[in-house]
Amino acid sequence: MKKIPDEILNCFHNNQRFLILLHQKPDGDAIGSAVALGKGLKQLNKTVDYYIDLPLEDKLVFFDEIQYFNQSLQDSYDVIVFLDCSSSSFAYSPAEMPAAKTKLVIDHHKSNAHYGDLNFVEITGATAEIVFRILKGLQVEFDEEMADAVFTGITTDTGSFQFSNVTVDTHLIASELYAIKTNYAHLSKRLHTQKNIDQMKMTGAAIHSLEILDSMPIAMMILDHETIIKFGGTINITDDVANLGQNTIGVSITALLKEIDGGEYRVSLRAKFPYDIHEIALKYGGGGHERAAGFNFSGDINELKRDLMEVYESQNGEN
Amino acid sequence: MKKIPDEILNCFHNNQRFLILLHQKPDGDAIGSAVALGKGLKQLNKTVDYYIDLPLEDKLVFFDEIQYFNQSLQDSYDVIVFLDCSSSSFAYSPAEMPAAKTKLVIDHHKSNAHYGDLNFVEITGATAEIVFRILKGLQVEFDEEMADAVFTGITTDTGSFQFSNVTVDTHLIASELYAIKTNYAHLSKRLHTQKNIDQMKMTGAAIHSLEILDSMPIAMMILDHETIIKFGGTINITDDVANLGQNTIGVSITALLKEIDGGEYRVSLRAKFPYDIHEIALKYGGGGHERAAGFNFSGDINELKRDLMEVYESQNGEN
Repeated sequence: MKKIPDEILNCFHNNQRFLILLHQKPDGDAIGSAVALGKGLKQLNKTVDYYIDLPLEDKLVFFDEIQYFNQSLQDSYDVIVFLDCSSSSFAYSPAEMPAAKTKLVIDHHKSNAHYGDLNFVEITGATAEIVFRILKGLQVEFDEEMADAVFTGITTDTGSFQFSNVTVDTHLIASELYAIKTNYAHLSKRLHTQKNIDQMKMTGAAIHSLEILDSMPIAMMILDHETIIKFGGTINITDDVANLGQNTIGVSITALLKEIDGGEYRVSLRAKFPYDIHEIALKYGGGGHERAAGFNFSGDINELKRDLMEVYESQNGEN
Repeated sequence: MKKIPDEILNCFHNNQRFLILLHQKPDGDAIGSAVALGKGLKQLNKTVDYYIDLPLEDKLVFFDEIQYFNQSLQDSYDVIVFLDCSSSSFAYSPAEMPAAKTKLVIDHHKSNAHYGDLNFVEITGATAEIVFRILKGLQVEFDEEMADAVFTGITTDTGSFQFSNVTVDTHLIASELYAIKTNYAHLSKRLHTQKNIDQMKMTGAAIHSLEILDSMPIAMMILDHETIIKFGGTINITDDVANLGQNTIGVSITALLKEIDGGEYRVSLRAKFPYDIHEIALKYGGGGHERAAGFNFSGDINELKRDLMEVYESQNGEN
C-alpha cells in the first residue's frame, strides 16, 4: 500500500484544531471521508469541527458522528481540511471563512486545482482510501463506524468495486476493513440497491427520458423540474441515475440533466474509457474528472448536445 | 491468505490427465473456475478436458478457452475435478462416467456432500477464490484471461463484492488480480450492469408502472402487451426487473405482471423473509418457492391484488 508523505502526516501530528469541509451536496465518499478522518483525529485528542452541506441523502444518514456536524464554528483553526473537493469554489464553506494557519487539500480528483497551502492529491478510487492510509500512518485504531465510513466512501465512488478507478490498493484497503468488521452486506444493500419509492420513481422517469443522440454512442436523460418536484426534489435523484445511460449497451458518454429550476440545469456527465468529458465541465465552470464530471447549465440544450457530439467525434478520431 | 493443504496440491502435481466437470447450467463462478484451473494445469503441461453444460449465458461467452470445452472425452483420467458443485447429482456429467484414479471435489458451498475421494470444501465467496489459491500454490503464472476468469467467479458469486460471503481473502485475491491486469471495469459492466436499450426502456416502463397497494408493503408492476412489443418482447425483460419492487424501501412483496397477450399475464412474485407467496402461485396453477414464484393469469387484476393483500395480512398477523 502506498505511503502518505511525512509532511501530510506531520500537518495532522503538529496541529490541534481542525475544521473539515467537503464539496457541495456531499456524496458517500465525502461523508465517509469526513466521518473517518474526524473520528480518527478526535481519537488523537484533536478538536474537530465539521461544516457540511445538509441535509444528506437518506442512505448516508446512519453514522453516529453526524450528530457533531455543524455544531460549532470557531473564528480560527490550525488547519482547514478540504476533503474530496477539487476546487475551492466547489467547496461548501462558511460565508465568512475562519482564519487558518494551513489550508490542507486531500483529494482523489485528477482535476484538483491544488488550491491549498498543502495538497495531497492522488488518483485513487476514493478520497476515503487516502483517509484510511493517513489514519494508518497516524497509527489510529479503527472502530466499526470508521470502517463503515471508509467502506462507504470506497464502495460508492467505485460503483461497488466496478469502476476503472479501482486499484490494487483499493482491494488491499477493503481487505483490511474486513479484518475490522466482517460483514458489509447490509451496508452495501443500503448504499447500492435500496431506494425509497420517490427515488425509484425518479429512476424510472430518467430511463423514460433516455434518448440516444443522433445514432451516436451518447445518451441523454432529462429530469424536468415538474418531475423532480413530483418525486420529492433532487435529493431523490440517486447517484446511480447518471450511470443508467452508461449501462446501456453501445453508449460511451451520458449526460443527465436535472432541471433544478425553470431552465436551470445541474448536469452530470459520465464517459467510458477512452473518452474524457471533463473539459466540457470546465468550459461551463464545473469540475470533476475524465470519466465523471458536473456543472451548472442554463443555455440551449442543443448546444450541449453539439458539445457532446464534438467531444465524441474528436476523441473517436484520436483513438 | 489461507493456504491450500498439501494433499490437494499434490493431487495436481502428481497426476497428468484431468477432466473438469461443473454443475448444471454453469454460472460465472463455475465457468471462471474451470477456465482458470484448466489453463493453469495446461501451463504445467497437464492434459485437460472439459465436459460442460452448454450453451452458456451470453455474458459469459468471452473466454478463448471456451473453444476447448467438450472437445474430447477419454475413457479414463487420472483425476476428475468437480468444481463449484455441491453434490454429484447436481453435476453435469457424461452418461457414462469415465474411469478415474481420483475424484477431487473443490467447492465453496456449505451444503457440499463431500462426495469425492478427496474433498476441499471451504466456505468462501467463490470457488474461483479457491482455484486462485491452488494455482498460486502450484506456482502457476497468471495471464490476463486467467485473471479475468477468477475475477468473473468472484464478482458474480459475491454480487460485486456486496454479499455476506465476502471475506478478507476475497479482497486480497482481488488485489492480486489487479496486479496482473489493471482494469476490470469493462468486465464488471458486462457481468453486472449492461442492458441493451430495449431492456433498459422495459425496466423504465416497469418502474413507471410501480404501484404500492393500499398503503401496504406490496408493490405491483404491470408491463402491458403494447409496451412489451414496443421494446422487443419478453426476452428483453431482464431477471432483475421483478427485484425492482423489492429494492423499494418498505416493500416486502412484489408482483410483476407481464401481459404476454391481450388480457393474459405471466406473473412473477417475490417476497422477503418471513413472507411466503408460493401458495398464491399454487392457487393459480403455477409453482416456485416461498420467496419467488410464478404463474399464468387471465382474470381480474383486482382479485389478484386482494389475494396479495390477504396473504400479507394473514402472515403479518402470524409474525
